[in-house]
Amino acid sequence: MTLKLYVDRMSQPSRAVIIFCKLNGIDFEEIHINLSKRQQLSPEFKEINPMKQVPAIMDGRFKLFESHAILRYLACAFPGIADHWYPADLYKRAKVDSVLDWHHSNLRRGTAGYIFNTVLAPAFGLPLNPQAAAEAKKVLLASLANIESVWLQRKGRFLLGSGQPSIADLSLVCELIELEILDEKDRERIIGPYKRVLKWIDDTKNAMEPHLQEVHVILYKAKEKFHKQRHAVGSSIPQSSRKPDLHSKM
Amino acid sequence: MTLKLYVDRMSQPSRAVIIFCKLNGIDFEEIHINLSKRQQLSPEFKEINPMKQVPAIMDGRFKLFESHAILRYLACAFPGIADHWYPADLYKRAKVDSVLDWHHSNLRRGTAGYIFNTVLAPAFGLPLNPQAAAEAKKVLLASLANIESVWLQRKGRFLLGSGQPSIADLSLVCELIELEILDEKDRERIIGPYKRVLKWIDDTKNAMEPHLQEVHVILYKAKEKFHKQRHAVGSSIPQSSRKPDLHSKM
Repeated sequence: MTLKLYVDRMSQPSRAVIIFCKLNGIDFEEIHINLSKRQQLSPEFKEINPMKQVPAIMDGRFKLFESHAILRYLACAFPGIADHWYPADLYKRAKVDSVLDWHHSNLRRGTAGYIFNTVLAPAFGLPLNPQAAAEAKKVLLASLANIESVWLQRKGRFLLGSGQPSIADLSLVCELIELEILDEKDRERIIGPYKRVLKWIDDTKNAMEPHLQEVHVILYKAKEKFHKQRHAVGSSIPQSSRKPDLHSKM
Repeated sequence: MTLKLYVDRMSQPSRAVIIFCKLNGIDFEEIHINLSKRQQLSPEFKEINPMKQVPAIMDGRFKLFESHAILRYLACAFPGIADHWYPADLYKRAKVDSVLDWHHSNLRRGTAGYIFNTVLAPAFGLPLNPQAAAEAKKVLLASLANIESVWLQRKGRFLLGSGQPSIADLSLVCELIELEILDEKDRERIIGPYKRVLKWIDDTKNAMEPHLQEVHVILYKAKEKFHKQRHAVGSSIPQSSRKPDLHSKM
Protein backbone atom coordinates (compact mmCIF):
# COMPACT_ATOMS: atom_id res chain seq x y z
CA MET A 1 0.00 0.00 0.00
CA THR A 2 1.42 3.38 -0.96
CA LEU A 3 2.56 5.71 1.79
CA LYS A 4 0.15 8.60 2.22
CA LEU A 5 1.47 12.07 3.05
CA TYR A 6 -1.05 14.56 4.42
CA VAL A 7 0.65 17.85 3.71
CA ASP A 8 0.42 21.42 2.58
CA ARG A 9 3.43 22.65 0.65
CA MET A 10 2.96 26.03 2.30
CA SER A 11 4.12 24.42 5.57
CA GLN A 12 7.86 24.01 5.93
CA PRO A 13 7.77 20.71 7.88
CA SER A 14 5.44 19.35 5.17
CA ARG A 15 7.98 20.31 2.53
CA ALA A 16 10.78 18.58 4.43
CA VAL A 17 8.84 15.31 4.50
CA ILE A 18 7.94 15.49 0.78
CA ILE A 19 11.53 16.29 -0.17
CA PHE A 20 12.84 13.40 1.91
CA CYS A 21 10.57 10.96 0.08
CA LYS A 22 11.49 12.33 -3.35
CA LEU A 23 15.21 12.27 -2.60
CA ASN A 24 15.03 8.68 -1.45
CA GLY A 25 12.75 7.26 -4.09
CA ILE A 26 9.94 6.54 -1.65
CA ASP A 27 6.63 6.26 -3.52
CA PHE A 28 3.89 8.31 -1.93
CA GLU A 29 0.47 9.71 -2.48
CA GLU A 30 0.30 13.42 -1.63
CA ILE A 31 -2.97 14.39 0.00
CA HIS A 32 -3.31 18.14 0.13
CA ILE A 33 -4.68 19.40 3.43
CA ASN A 34 -5.35 22.97 2.44
CA LEU A 35 -4.48 25.09 5.44
CA SER A 36 -5.92 28.22 3.82
CA LYS A 37 -9.28 26.42 3.81
CA ARG A 38 -8.64 25.14 7.34
CA GLN A 39 -8.97 21.55 6.16
CA GLN A 40 -6.69 20.47 9.01
CA LEU A 41 -9.69 21.07 11.29
CA SER A 42 -12.04 18.72 9.42
CA PRO A 43 -13.41 15.62 11.19
CA GLU A 44 -11.86 13.45 8.43
CA PHE A 45 -8.38 14.82 9.08
CA LYS A 46 -8.82 14.59 12.82
CA GLU A 47 -8.97 10.82 12.30
CA ILE A 48 -5.50 11.02 10.77
CA ASN A 49 -3.99 13.52 13.20
CA PRO A 50 -6.00 14.44 16.30
CA MET A 51 -3.59 17.36 16.83
CA LYS A 52 -4.94 18.90 13.59
CA GLN A 53 -1.56 19.72 12.12
CA VAL A 54 0.33 18.86 8.98
CA PRO A 55 2.37 16.93 8.11
CA ALA A 56 0.97 13.54 9.04
CA ILE A 57 1.44 10.20 7.34
CA MET A 58 -0.35 6.92 6.98
CA ASP A 59 1.80 3.90 6.12
CA GLY A 60 -0.59 0.99 5.74
CA ARG A 61 -2.61 1.30 8.92
CA PHE A 62 0.14 3.08 10.82
CA LYS A 63 -0.52 6.77 11.46
CA LEU A 64 2.12 9.25 12.57
CA PHE A 65 2.51 12.99 13.01
CA GLU A 66 5.27 15.46 13.99
CA SER A 67 7.70 15.99 11.13
CA HIS A 68 10.86 14.95 12.99
CA ALA A 69 9.26 11.72 14.17
CA ILE A 70 8.09 11.13 10.58
CA LEU A 71 11.55 11.74 9.13
CA ARG A 72 13.15 9.39 11.68
CA TYR A 73 10.53 6.76 10.91
CA LEU A 74 10.87 7.00 7.14
CA ALA A 75 14.67 6.82 7.37
CA CYS A 76 14.37 3.54 9.31
CA ALA A 77 11.27 1.96 7.78
CA PHE A 78 12.15 2.03 4.09
CA PRO A 79 14.88 -0.14 2.64
CA GLY A 80 18.00 1.33 1.08
CA ILE A 81 17.90 4.78 2.70
CA ALA A 82 21.50 5.99 2.90
CA ASP A 83 22.86 5.96 6.44
CA HIS A 84 23.86 9.63 6.46
CA TRP A 85 20.22 10.72 6.71
CA TYR A 86 19.81 9.26 10.20
CA PRO A 87 22.97 7.36 11.12
CA ALA A 88 22.67 3.96 12.78
CA ASP A 89 25.81 4.75 14.81
CA LEU A 90 24.68 5.54 18.34
CA TYR A 91 26.85 8.62 18.78
CA LYS A 92 26.13 10.13 15.39
CA ARG A 93 22.42 9.48 15.78
CA ALA A 94 22.38 11.11 19.22
CA LYS A 95 23.99 14.24 17.76
CA VAL A 96 21.39 14.43 14.99
CA ASP A 97 18.67 13.98 17.62
CA SER A 98 20.23 16.80 19.62
CA VAL A 99 19.97 19.19 16.66
CA LEU A 100 16.40 18.11 15.92
CA ASP A 101 15.32 18.61 19.54
CA TRP A 102 17.10 21.96 19.78
CA HIS A 103 15.30 23.13 16.65
CA HIS A 104 11.81 23.25 18.22
CA SER A 105 12.34 25.92 20.86
CA ASN A 106 15.02 27.82 18.98
CA LEU A 107 15.19 28.14 15.20
CA ARG A 108 11.59 27.03 14.62
CA ARG A 109 10.18 29.22 17.35
CA GLY A 110 12.15 32.22 16.15
CA THR A 111 11.47 31.80 12.45
CA ALA A 112 7.80 30.90 12.72
CA GLY A 113 7.14 33.62 15.30
CA TYR A 114 8.91 36.29 13.29
CA ILE A 115 7.29 35.46 9.95
CA PHE A 116 3.86 35.17 11.50
CA ASN A 117 4.07 38.49 13.28
CA THR A 118 5.63 40.44 10.41
CA VAL A 119 3.89 38.91 7.38
CA LEU A 120 1.27 36.23 7.92
CA ALA A 121 -0.86 37.34 10.89
CA PRO A 122 -3.33 39.36 8.77
CA ALA A 123 -4.16 36.20 6.83
CA PHE A 124 -5.45 34.81 10.14
CA GLY A 125 -7.45 37.96 10.85
CA LEU A 126 -4.88 39.13 13.38
CA PRO A 127 -2.94 42.39 13.40
CA LEU A 128 0.81 42.29 12.93
CA ASN A 129 2.37 42.26 16.38
CA PRO A 130 5.64 44.22 16.52
CA GLN A 131 6.42 43.22 20.12
CA ALA A 132 5.97 39.51 19.45
CA ALA A 133 7.96 39.96 16.24
CA ALA A 134 10.81 41.60 18.17
CA GLU A 135 10.88 38.76 20.70
CA ALA A 136 10.83 36.13 17.96
CA LYS A 137 13.59 37.98 16.12
CA LYS A 138 15.84 37.72 19.18
CA VAL A 139 15.30 33.95 19.27
CA LEU A 140 15.89 33.73 15.52
CA LEU A 141 19.16 35.72 15.64
CA ALA A 142 20.46 33.75 18.60
CA SER A 143 19.60 30.53 16.75
CA LEU A 144 21.42 31.65 13.61
CA ALA A 145 24.45 32.61 15.68
CA ASN A 146 24.47 29.17 17.32
CA ILE A 147 24.15 27.30 14.03
CA GLU A 148 27.02 29.41 12.66
CA SER A 149 29.32 29.01 15.64
CA VAL A 150 28.44 25.57 16.99
CA TRP A 151 27.18 23.26 14.30
CA LEU A 152 28.87 24.68 11.22
CA GLN A 153 32.21 25.11 12.92
CA ARG A 154 33.74 21.89 11.69
CA LYS A 155 35.12 20.89 8.33
CA GLY A 156 32.24 19.19 6.52
CA ARG A 157 29.71 21.15 4.52
CA PHE A 158 26.78 20.06 6.67
CA LEU A 159 25.69 20.27 10.32
CA LEU A 160 27.92 18.51 12.85
CA GLY A 161 30.80 18.55 10.39
CA SER A 162 29.23 15.88 8.21
CA GLY A 163 30.14 15.53 4.55
CA GLN A 164 26.57 14.54 3.69
CA PRO A 165 23.23 15.90 4.86
CA SER A 166 21.08 14.39 7.61
CA ILE A 167 17.39 14.85 8.31
CA ALA A 168 18.49 17.70 10.60
CA ASP A 169 19.99 19.60 7.66
CA LEU A 170 16.79 19.04 5.72
CA SER A 171 14.49 20.20 8.52
CA LEU A 172 16.48 23.27 9.49
CA VAL A 173 17.16 24.41 5.92
CA CYS A 174 13.46 24.12 5.04
CA GLU A 175 12.80 26.35 8.03
CA LEU A 176 15.33 28.93 6.87
CA ILE A 177 14.13 28.97 3.27
CA GLU A 178 10.77 30.09 4.67
CA LEU A 179 12.47 33.42 5.43
CA GLU A 180 12.28 34.10 1.66
CA ILE A 181 8.74 35.24 2.30
CA LEU A 182 10.00 38.28 4.20
CA ASP A 183 10.74 41.61 2.61
CA GLU A 184 14.05 41.00 0.81
CA LYS A 185 15.95 43.72 2.70
CA ASP A 186 14.66 42.51 6.04
CA ARG A 187 15.72 38.95 5.22
CA GLU A 188 19.15 40.15 4.14
CA ARG A 189 19.62 42.11 7.39
CA ILE A 190 18.68 39.06 9.44
CA ILE A 191 20.55 36.28 7.70
CA GLY A 192 23.24 38.20 5.78
CA PRO A 193 25.82 38.32 8.60
CA TYR A 194 25.85 34.53 8.93
CA LYS A 195 28.14 33.54 6.08
CA ARG A 196 28.49 29.89 7.05
CA VAL A 197 24.71 29.58 7.35
CA LEU A 198 24.27 31.06 3.87
CA LYS A 199 26.84 28.70 2.38
CA TRP A 200 25.26 25.75 4.18
CA ILE A 201 21.81 26.63 2.78
CA ASP A 202 23.32 26.77 -0.72
CA ASP A 203 25.20 23.50 -0.22
CA THR A 204 22.04 21.83 1.03
CA LYS A 205 20.00 23.17 -1.88
CA ASN A 206 22.66 21.86 -4.29
CA ALA A 207 22.82 18.47 -2.59
CA MET A 208 19.04 18.11 -2.83
CA GLU A 209 18.39 19.21 -6.39
CA PRO A 210 16.05 19.16 -8.18
CA HIS A 211 13.58 18.14 -5.47
CA LEU A 212 14.28 20.80 -2.89
CA GLN A 213 13.70 23.67 -5.29
CA GLU A 214 10.75 22.00 -7.01
CA VAL A 215 8.89 21.52 -3.72
CA HIS A 216 9.57 25.16 -2.82
CA VAL A 217 8.03 26.55 -6.04
CA ILE A 218 4.84 27.36 -4.15
CA LEU A 219 6.81 29.40 -1.61
CA TYR A 220 8.63 31.34 -4.31
CA LYS A 221 5.27 32.16 -5.93
CA ALA A 222 3.93 33.34 -2.59
CA LYS A 223 7.06 35.44 -2.20
CA GLU A 224 6.33 37.20 -5.51
CA LYS A 225 2.75 37.78 -4.47
CA PHE A 226 3.77 39.33 -1.16
CA HIS A 227 6.39 41.40 -2.92
CA LYS A 228 3.77 42.80 -5.36
CA GLN A 229 1.33 43.46 -2.51
CA ARG A 230 3.96 45.38 -0.58
CA HIS A 231 4.67 47.56 -3.58
CA ALA A 232 1.01 47.99 -4.55
CA VAL A 233 -0.22 48.74 -1.06
CA GLY A 234 2.75 50.81 0.03
CA SER A 235 2.81 52.05 3.57
CA SER A 236 -0.27 54.26 3.42
CA ILE A 237 -2.60 51.48 4.51
CA PRO A 238 -2.33 50.28 8.09
CA GLN A 239 -0.55 46.94 8.15
CA SER A 240 -3.27 45.29 10.18
CA SER A 241 -5.77 45.73 7.37
CA ARG A 242 -3.61 44.08 4.73
CA LYS A 243 -5.04 40.70 3.95
CA PRO A 244 -2.91 38.61 1.67
CA ASP A 245 -4.95 35.67 0.39
CA LEU A 246 -2.44 33.24 1.74
CA HIS A 247 -2.73 31.20 4.88
CA SER A 248 -0.23 28.98 6.51
CA LYS A 249 -0.41 26.90 9.63
CA MET A 250 3.35 27.45 10.07
CA MET B 1 34.67 6.16 33.15
CA THR B 2 31.57 7.29 35.03
CA LEU B 3 28.86 9.12 33.15
CA LYS B 4 28.80 12.80 34.08
CA LEU B 5 25.49 14.64 34.36
CA TYR B 6 25.64 18.43 34.28
CA VAL B 7 22.36 19.37 35.86
CA ASP B 8 20.41 21.59 38.19
CA ARG B 9 17.58 19.85 40.01
CA MET B 10 15.58 23.06 39.73
CA SER B 11 15.29 22.35 35.98
CA GLN B 12 12.66 19.82 35.02
CA PRO B 13 14.56 18.27 32.08
CA SER B 14 17.56 17.87 34.41
CA ARG B 15 15.36 16.01 36.85
CA ALA B 16 14.08 13.70 34.11
CA VAL B 17 17.62 12.69 33.17
CA ILE B 18 18.68 12.09 36.80
CA ILE B 19 15.56 10.03 37.49
CA PHE B 20 16.14 7.93 34.38
CA CYS B 21 19.64 7.06 35.53
CA LYS B 22 18.52 6.21 39.05
CA LEU B 23 15.63 4.07 37.85
CA ASN B 24 17.91 2.12 35.55
CA GLY B 25 20.89 1.67 37.82
CA ILE B 26 23.17 3.81 35.66
CA ASP B 27 26.12 5.06 37.73
CA PHE B 28 26.69 8.76 37.32
CA GLU B 29 28.48 11.72 38.79
CA GLU B 30 26.13 14.66 39.32
CA ILE B 31 27.78 17.99 38.58
CA HIS B 32 25.64 20.84 39.80
CA ILE B 33 25.47 23.71 37.36
CA ASN B 34 23.83 26.26 39.62
CA LEU B 35 21.44 28.24 37.46
CA SER B 36 20.76 30.73 40.25
CA LYS B 37 24.46 31.62 40.06
CA ARG B 38 24.33 31.56 36.25
CA GLN B 39 27.01 28.88 36.15
CA GLN B 40 25.60 27.69 32.82
CA LEU B 41 27.17 30.81 31.31
CA SER B 42 30.70 30.02 32.51
CA PRO B 43 33.49 29.36 29.98
CA GLU B 44 34.05 25.93 31.58
CA PHE B 45 30.45 24.89 31.01
CA LYS B 46 30.44 26.31 27.49
CA GLU B 47 33.01 23.62 26.70
CA ILE B 48 30.43 21.02 27.75
CA ASN B 49 27.39 22.63 26.16
CA PRO B 50 27.93 25.61 23.86
CA MET B 51 24.17 26.29 24.07
CA LYS B 52 24.65 27.08 27.79
CA GLN B 53 21.74 24.99 29.00
CA VAL B 54 21.26 22.10 31.36
CA PRO B 55 21.03 19.17 31.23
CA ALA B 56 24.14 18.07 29.37
CA ILE B 57 26.12 14.86 29.71
CA MET B 58 29.63 13.61 29.12
CA ASP B 59 30.03 9.86 28.60
CA GLY B 60 33.74 9.24 28.24
CA ARG B 61 34.66 11.85 25.66
CA PHE B 62 31.17 11.99 24.19
CA LYS B 63 29.26 15.17 24.96
CA LEU B 64 25.54 15.60 24.44
CA PHE B 65 22.81 18.08 25.29
CA GLU B 66 19.01 18.37 24.89
CA SER B 67 17.18 16.20 27.40
CA HIS B 68 15.21 14.13 24.90
CA ALA B 69 18.32 13.32 22.89
CA ILE B 70 20.06 12.40 26.17
CA LEU B 71 17.21 10.12 27.26
CA ARG B 72 17.15 8.39 23.86
CA TYR B 73 20.92 7.96 24.01
CA LEU B 74 21.00 6.60 27.55
CA ALA B 75 18.20 4.14 26.77
CA CYS B 76 20.25 2.76 23.87
CA ALA B 77 23.83 3.09 25.14
CA PHE B 78 23.59 1.29 28.48
CA PRO B 79 23.07 -2.45 28.72
CA GLY B 80 19.97 -3.94 30.24
CA ILE B 81 17.65 -0.95 29.96
CA ALA B 82 14.11 -2.32 29.72
CA ASP B 83 12.62 -1.97 26.26
CA HIS B 84 9.53 -0.06 27.40
CA TRP B 85 11.58 3.08 28.01
CA TYR B 86 12.36 3.55 24.32
CA PRO B 87 11.04 0.57 22.39
CA ALA B 88 13.21 -1.00 19.71
CA ASP B 89 10.07 -1.76 17.69
CA LEU B 90 9.97 0.72 14.82
CA TYR B 91 6.29 1.64 15.21
CA LYS B 92 6.31 1.95 18.99
CA ARG B 93 9.50 3.99 18.88
CA ALA B 94 8.05 6.34 16.26
CA LYS B 95 5.03 6.97 18.49
CA VAL B 96 7.25 7.78 21.48
CA ASP B 97 9.26 10.12 19.23
CA SER B 98 6.03 11.78 18.15
CA VAL B 99 5.09 12.55 21.77
CA LEU B 100 8.59 13.82 22.55
CA ASP B 101 8.62 16.11 19.50
CA TRP B 102 5.12 17.38 20.22
CA HIS B 103 6.15 18.23 23.78
CA HIS B 104 8.53 21.06 22.81
CA SER B 105 6.09 23.50 21.23
CA ASN B 106 3.09 22.47 23.28
CA LEU B 107 3.25 21.25 26.88
CA ARG B 108 6.76 22.56 27.50
CA ARG B 109 6.10 25.91 25.92
CA GLY B 110 2.86 26.33 27.82
CA THR B 111 4.12 25.17 31.20
CA ALA B 112 7.46 26.97 31.13
CA GLY B 113 5.92 30.18 29.77
CA TYR B 114 3.11 30.18 32.32
CA ILE B 115 5.31 29.49 35.35
CA PHE B 116 7.91 32.01 34.26
CA ASN B 117 5.39 34.77 33.74
CA THR B 118 3.35 34.13 36.88
CA VAL B 119 6.05 33.12 39.38
CA LEU B 120 9.68 33.13 38.30
CA ALA B 121 10.22 36.28 36.21
CA PRO B 122 11.09 38.50 39.21
CA ALA B 123 13.99 36.18 40.00
CA PHE B 124 15.40 37.21 36.63
CA GLY B 125 14.83 40.88 37.33
CA LEU B 126 11.80 40.93 35.05
CA PRO B 127 8.26 41.96 35.91
CA LEU B 128 5.53 39.33 35.82
CA ASN B 129 3.90 39.52 32.41
CA PRO B 130 0.15 38.84 32.52
CA GLN B 131 -0.26 38.93 28.73
CA ALA B 132 2.52 36.42 28.13
CA ALA B 133 1.12 34.34 31.01
CA ALA B 134 -2.33 34.34 29.39
CA GLU B 135 -0.91 33.23 26.06
CA ALA B 136 1.15 30.48 27.69
CA LYS B 137 -1.89 29.36 29.67
CA LYS B 138 -3.83 28.84 26.44
CA VAL B 139 -1.04 26.61 25.12
CA LEU B 140 -0.88 24.77 28.46
CA LEU B 141 -4.63 24.11 28.61
CA ALA B 142 -4.76 22.96 24.99
CA SER B 143 -1.83 20.65 25.70
CA LEU B 144 -3.51 19.15 28.76
CA ALA B 145 -6.71 18.62 26.78
CA ASN B 146 -4.75 16.81 24.06
CA ILE B 147 -2.90 14.58 26.51
CA GLU B 148 -6.23 13.73 28.14
CA SER B 149 -8.14 13.01 24.94
CA VAL B 150 -5.45 11.70 22.59
CA TRP B 151 -2.67 9.97 24.46
CA LEU B 152 -4.46 8.79 27.57
CA GLN B 153 -7.49 7.55 25.70
CA ARG B 154 -6.43 3.94 25.52
CA LYS B 155 -6.43 1.20 28.09
CA GLY B 156 -2.91 1.25 29.57
CA ARG B 157 -1.97 3.49 32.44
CA PHE B 158 0.67 5.35 30.44
CA LEU B 159 0.89 7.43 27.28
CA LEU B 160 -0.03 5.71 24.04
CA GLY B 161 -1.92 3.06 25.95
CA SER B 162 1.24 1.43 27.24
CA GLY B 163 1.26 -0.66 30.39
CA GLN B 164 4.72 0.63 31.32
CA PRO B 165 6.24 4.10 31.14
CA SER B 166 8.48 5.38 28.34
CA ILE B 167 10.90 8.29 28.34
CA ALA B 168 7.96 10.35 27.07
CA ASP B 169 5.99 9.69 30.26
CA LEU B 170 9.04 10.64 32.29
CA SER B 171 9.69 13.88 30.40
CA LEU B 172 6.09 15.07 30.32
CA VAL B 173 5.33 14.18 33.93
CA CYS B 174 8.44 16.03 35.13
CA GLU B 175 7.14 19.03 33.22
CA LEU B 176 3.72 18.80 34.86
CA ILE B 177 5.08 18.33 38.39
CA GLU B 178 6.76 21.71 37.92
CA LEU B 179 3.25 23.20 38.16
CA GLU B 180 3.46 22.48 41.91
CA ILE B 181 5.36 25.74 42.19
CA LEU B 182 2.22 27.70 41.32
CA ASP B 183 -0.25 28.95 43.85
CA GLU B 184 -2.17 25.82 44.87
CA LYS B 185 -5.58 27.13 43.82
CA ASP B 186 -4.26 28.29 40.48
CA ARG B 187 -2.71 24.88 39.86
CA GLU B 188 -5.94 23.16 40.82
CA ARG B 189 -7.97 25.34 38.44
CA ILE B 190 -5.58 24.54 35.59
CA ILE B 191 -5.02 20.84 35.97
CA GLY B 192 -8.04 19.79 38.08
CA PRO B 193 -10.45 19.21 35.18
CA TYR B 194 -8.10 16.70 33.53
CA LYS B 195 -8.86 13.57 35.53
CA ARG B 196 -6.94 11.17 33.31
CA VAL B 197 -3.91 13.46 33.42
CA LEU B 198 -4.05 13.54 37.23
CA LYS B 199 -4.32 9.77 37.43
CA TRP B 200 -1.46 9.36 34.95
CA ILE B 201 0.78 11.67 37.01
CA ASP B 202 0.00 9.58 40.10
CA ASP B 203 0.59 6.32 38.26
CA THR B 204 3.90 7.61 36.93
CA LYS B 205 4.98 8.79 40.37
CA ASN B 206 4.10 5.38 41.79
CA ALA B 207 5.91 3.53 39.02
CA MET B 208 9.04 5.58 39.59
CA GLU B 209 9.30 5.51 43.38
CA PRO B 210 11.35 6.35 45.32
CA HIS B 211 13.52 8.14 42.78
CA LEU B 212 10.97 10.44 41.22
CA GLN B 213 9.89 11.96 44.53
CA GLU B 214 13.44 12.08 45.91
CA VAL B 215 14.72 14.08 42.96
CA HIS B 216 11.78 16.47 43.30
CA VAL B 217 12.48 17.28 46.96
CA ILE B 218 14.16 20.52 45.92
CA LEU B 219 11.04 21.57 44.03
CA TYR B 220 8.76 20.82 46.97
CA LYS B 221 11.03 22.94 49.20
CA ALA B 222 10.85 25.77 46.69
CA LYS B 223 7.09 25.36 46.65
CA GLU B 224 6.96 25.87 50.43
CA LYS B 225 9.17 28.93 50.14
CA PHE B 226 6.97 30.50 47.48
CA HIS B 227 3.88 29.65 49.49
CA LYS B 228 5.31 31.41 52.57
CA GLN B 229 6.37 34.40 50.49
CA ARG B 230 2.89 34.75 49.02
CA HIS B 231 1.36 34.74 52.49
CA ALA B 232 3.97 37.04 54.00
CA VAL B 233 3.96 39.53 51.17
CA GLY B 234 0.22 39.45 50.58
CA SER B 235 -1.16 41.38 47.68
CA SER B 236 -0.29 44.88 48.91
CA ILE B 237 3.10 44.85 47.23
CA PRO B 238 3.12 45.03 43.44
CA GLN B 239 3.93 41.60 42.04
CA SER B 240 6.73 42.97 39.89
CA SER B 241 8.74 43.93 42.96
CA ARG B 242 8.58 40.52 44.60
CA LYS B 243 11.95 38.86 44.35
CA PRO B 244 12.02 35.26 45.44
CA ASP B 245 15.62 34.12 45.87
CA LEU B 246 15.13 31.31 43.46
CA HIS B 247 16.29 31.19 39.89
CA SER B 248 15.56 28.62 37.28
CA LYS B 249 16.65 28.33 33.72
CA MET B 250 13.37 26.51 32.95
